[in-house]
Amino acid sequence: MGVMSFRDSMFLLAESREHPTHVGSLLLFDRPEDAGPDFLGDLHRRLVSSNEVAPTFARRAYRSLSTLGQWAWEPEKNLDIEYHVRLSALPRPGRIRELLELVSRLHGSLLDRHRPLWEFHLIEGVEGDRFAAYFKVHHAMMDGVTGIRHLQKTLSTDPEDLDTPPFWQVDPRSKKQPAAEVEERPEPGVLEWVGSTVSEGYRTVSSAVADTVRTTNSVLGVAPALANAVYDGLANRDTALPFEAPHSMFNVPITGARRFAAESWPLKRIQRVRERTSSTVNDVVLAMCSGALRRYMLELGELPDKPLVAALPVSLGTTGEGNQLGAILVTLATDEADAGVRLERIKASGKAAKANLDQRDPMAVAALSLAVAAPLPLGTVPGVSSVINPGFNLIISNVPGPKAPLYWEGAKLSGMYPLSVPLDGQALNMTVFSYADNMEFGLTGDRRSVPRLQKLLGYLEDALVELEAVADAADS
Amino acid sequence: MGVMSFRDSMFLLAESREHPTHVGSLLLFDRPEDAGPDFLGDLHRRLVSSNEVAPTFARRAYRSLSTLGQWAWEPEKNLDIEYHVRLSALPRPGRIRELLELVSRLHGSLLDRHRPLWEFHLIEGVEGDRFAAYFKVHHAMMDGVTGIRHLQKTLSTDPEDLDTPPFWQVDPRSKKQPAAEVEERPEPGVLEWVGSTVSEGYRTVSSAVADTVRTTNSVLGVAPALANAVYDGLANRDTALPFEAPHSMFNVPITGARRFAAESWPLKRIQRVRERTSSTVNDVVLAMCSGALRRYMLELGELPDKPLVAALPVSLGTTGEGNQLGAILVTLATDEADAGVRLERIKASGKAAKANLDQRDPMAVAALSLAVAAPLPLGTVPGVSSVINPGFNLIISNVPGPKAPLYWEGAKLSGMYPLSVPLDGQALNMTVFSYADNMEFGLTGDRRSVPRLQKLLGYLEDALVELEAVADAADS
Repeated sequence: MGVMSFRDSMFLLAESREHPTHVGSLLLFDRPEDAGPDFLGDLHRRLVSSNEVAPTFARRAYRSLSTLGQWAWEPEKNLDIEYHVRLSALPRPGRIRELLELVSRLHGSLLDRHRPLWEFHLIEGVEGDRFAAYFKVHHAMMDGVTGIRHLQKTLSTDPEDLDTPPFWQVDPRSKKQPAAEVEERPEPGVLEWVGSTVSEGYRTVSSAVADTVRTTNSVLGVAPALANAVYDGLANRDTALPFEAPHSMFNVPITGARRFAAESWPLKRIQRVRERTSSTVNDVVLAMCSGALRRYMLELGELPDKPLVAALPVSLGTTGEGNQLGAILVTLATDEADAGVRLERIKASGKAAKANLDQRDPMAVAALSLAVAAPLPLGTVPGVSSVINPGFNLIISNVPGPKAPLYWEGAKLSGMYPLSVPLDGQALNMTVFSYADNMEFGLTGDRRSVPRLQKLLGYLEDALVELEAVADAADS
Repeated sequence: MGVMSFRDSMFLLAESREHPTHVGSLLLFDRPEDAGPDFLGDLHRRLVSSNEVAPTFARRAYRSLSTLGQWAWEPEKNLDIEYHVRLSALPRPGRIRELLELVSRLHGSLLDRHRPLWEFHLIEGVEGDRFAAYFKVHHAMMDGVTGIRHLQKTLSTDPEDLDTPPFWQVDPRSKKQPAAEVEERPEPGVLEWVGSTVSEGYRTVSSAVADTVRTTNSVLGVAPALANAVYDGLANRDTALPFEAPHSMFNVPITGARRFAAESWPLKRIQRVRERTSSTVNDVVLAMCSGALRRYMLELGELPDKPLVAALPVSLGTTGEGNQLGAILVTLATDEADAGVRLERIKASGKAAKANLDQRDPMAVAALSLAVAAPLPLGTVPGVSSVINPGFNLIISNVPGPKAPLYWEGAKLSGMYPLSVPLDGQALNMTVFSYADNMEFGLTGDRRSVPRLQKLLGYLEDALVELEAVADAADS
C-alpha cells in the first residue's frame, strides 16, 4: 500500500503515551421499541461474526529497513475483529455522566500499533432505554470528519432498514459509496462558513508554524519536501498580528488522561437568537462558547485580562489537489461581561477575518493545515516546546452534519458528538456538529489542566439563555 | 523521596506501549445477602470521597535535570482520587467470560506516568449476585506479591467488619500493619517450595542474563553499579546446561494487547492426587499446566518435539538485605503423552533441581532476579532482541496466599487471581495463588501469539481429571 504521506506519518512520529493522536465520535441511540434485553449483545455477536473488512480498515502501519525507516501501510492478514469491535456497559444508574466517564477513559488509551488503528465500542446500559457507540480511529488513518462520514455508512434515513453492513465492511469504491465521497475529504473540522481565500488574519499562526515545521523537520529527520516548501514560502512574509492571544490555563503542557463532555442544543433556539441579532449560527455558537469559558475561568480565578482568541478551521474551497483548509482567528471577547456586547464584538471580529480572506496562498494553507486542522502534538518533539502558544488559545470547530434523522437497525440516532485531540498548549478543544434539529457540542480536555470540564455544559446553557435575553431585548 | 533503585527504574526505562510493565490482581466477591442494588455505587462513592492517600500510593515517578536524568519518586500534591478509583460494569449476561474480557482490556492499557502508578476498578454486573475488583500497579512501585499484600489490608477475616479503610489509605508504618510485612517483601512469585541455596540448574539463565544486563546497561546508559557487578560475577563461570528449552510459540515478540484467563480449583482435588502419587502440591500444579499446554499446542500444531522448560521463582531465604529470590528450571515433559509418566518426569526434574540448590551465589541470585522475578521487557531495548530465549519457555509462579476466607464490607472474597506481565519471548505467564480452600490459576498472555487462551482453562481441568485417574490407579 506504500509509504504514508509526510503529514500522516507525523501523527505516528510525534505520538507519545501522553499525546495519543486519535480522534473519536460518540453516538447515542434510542433502542428500538420492540428491542429485547439482548438487542445489543445480539448486534455485537453479529458484528464480530465476520472478519470481512474493507482495505481502509484492514491496513496496518509499519516501518522497517525496506521502507527506509519511513512509516508505510500494509494489509493486516490476521485481522482479529473481536479486538476491534467491543461490547461494554455502564455502571448504574447509567446516566450521561457515567457514559462520558467511560468514553473519557476509552479516548485516553492508546491504539495498538500492531493492528489496524481503530476500535468500535458498543455501550449498553444507558438510562432512558438508550445505548451508545464510540468510534476511535488514528489520525494517521483518517481525520475526524472522514471518520464520521464512514460511520454514516452504517446508518440509514430509513428506520425499517435492518440490513446495513457495518462501515468497516463497506468498500469505499463500491457503487453505493463512491470513493470520492469518503476518500477525498482530507481535512478535519471543515467549517463551511466561509468559502473563498486566505486571510491576513492568520499570518501570525503561519509564521509560528513555519518555525515549528522547520524544527520538527530537522529533529525528526522525516521526508522534508512539504515541510521545506512551507517554510520557504513563509519565511519572507509579513507577520502582522491582528490581536495577540493571552497566555491562559488552556495553553500548558498536558498529561495522558482525558475528560470528555457532550450535550445537544436545539438548532431552533440558536436560530432564534441568530435571526433577532442579525448574526450567523456560528456567531451564536462562538458567543455560547465565549460566555461559558468566561464564567468557567472566572470561577477558577483564571480569566486573563485580555480576551481569548479562537482558531476556526475554514474550508478554502477545492483546488486540483483536493479540499484546502485554512483557519481564521476570532476574538472571544471574554474580557467583556455583557453578553450582548460580547456577541457584537465576536461578530465584528469574524466579519473582519472573513473580509481579510483575500489572498489564497497554498503555502499558508499548508502551514495552517499543519497547525490547526492537523492535531500534531508538536510539544512532544524535543526542541519544539517553545511553540506552545501559536497565537490562539483554543480551536473551535463547527462541522456540518446530516440534516435528516438517522437510524441503525431500527434504533434512532439521537446524538452524535465529536471527540478531538488535546495537545500540549491546547488543553481544550470544542467541536460543534450539526445533526438533524440539534447542534451537538463535544468538549475534549486534558484531565489535569481542565478540571470539572462537565461544568462547561451548564455554562453553555447559561450563555445561551443570556443570548436569548439579548435577542428578546433586540426584538422588543 | 529520592532516586529509584536501578532495578525499579528499569521497569520505567524499558517500558513501551507494547510492553506495559504493570502487574494486576482480580478479586471476585459474593455480594452481601442484604446488599441493595446500589451497594457497589455507594461503596465507590465512599471510596472516592476522601483524597487521603498513604505516601506509598501518593508518590509519582519523575526525572529531570535535578535527578541527573534518573528516575526518582516525588509526592503527588494534587492527587485526583476519582482518576485512580473507578467504577465499571459488565455487559449482559455478565459471565466470567465478559469479566475476563474487560480485565484483559484494562490490563492492556498503560498507566499515566504523570500520576501515582496505580488504578483500582470496581466492577458491577457479575452474574450470580457477585462483583469484582481489579487492581493495577506499576512494577516500579511494587511487585505482584506486594500488591496482593496491600490489597489484603482492605480485607478482613470477619464478615461483620464494615470499617476497613481502603488499602491506599493505610500507612504501612501504622501499628495495625507493621511496615516490615508489606515493605520488605521485595520480590514477586515467591515460591516457598524450596528454601536453601542456589543451583547449578540455572547457571544457563544467568549467563544469558549477564549478556542482557551488559547490553541493556550500555544501551540505556543507566546506573551501572548493580548491572556491572552481576556481569562481572558471571562472566567467568561455567554455563552447564541441564536441558535446553526448545523454541516454541510462546517465545516470540509480543504485541500490545492482552488476554487473561482465570479459574479456581479445589485444593482438595489437588491434594488427593498429591497424596496418592507421593508428589507435592507444586508437582501436581506443574503436571496440570503441562497437560494443558501439551493439548493446547497439539491442537494448534505447535507442540515442539523437545519438552517445554518452565522457570519457577523460588525463595532462597533471607539475608541481611531482605529476601533473596532465585529460580529453578523444571522440564514439563510435554513430549510425553501419558499423564502418569509426565508427572513422574516432572517430579524427578524438580527433585534434581532442588538437590542442586547447593551453592548460594549472590551474583547468580541478582541476575536471576532480573530475568525471572523481574518482568523486564528487554526485548524492547534495541540490540537485546537476540536474548529472546533465556533458557526456558515460560515462567510458572506458585504464590502462597491467605488460608482463611476474607471479606470486604460483608462481601465474601470468592476468588483472587494474579495478572502478570507478558514479555517479548515470554508471551504466556501462568501464576497460581492459593486462597482458602482453592488454588487460583491466572493466565496472562499476549493476545496475538496466544490465541484462544480461555481454552487452557478447560484443558487444565482435563489434565487434573487425567491426574485423578492416575491417582485412582495408584491407589487401587
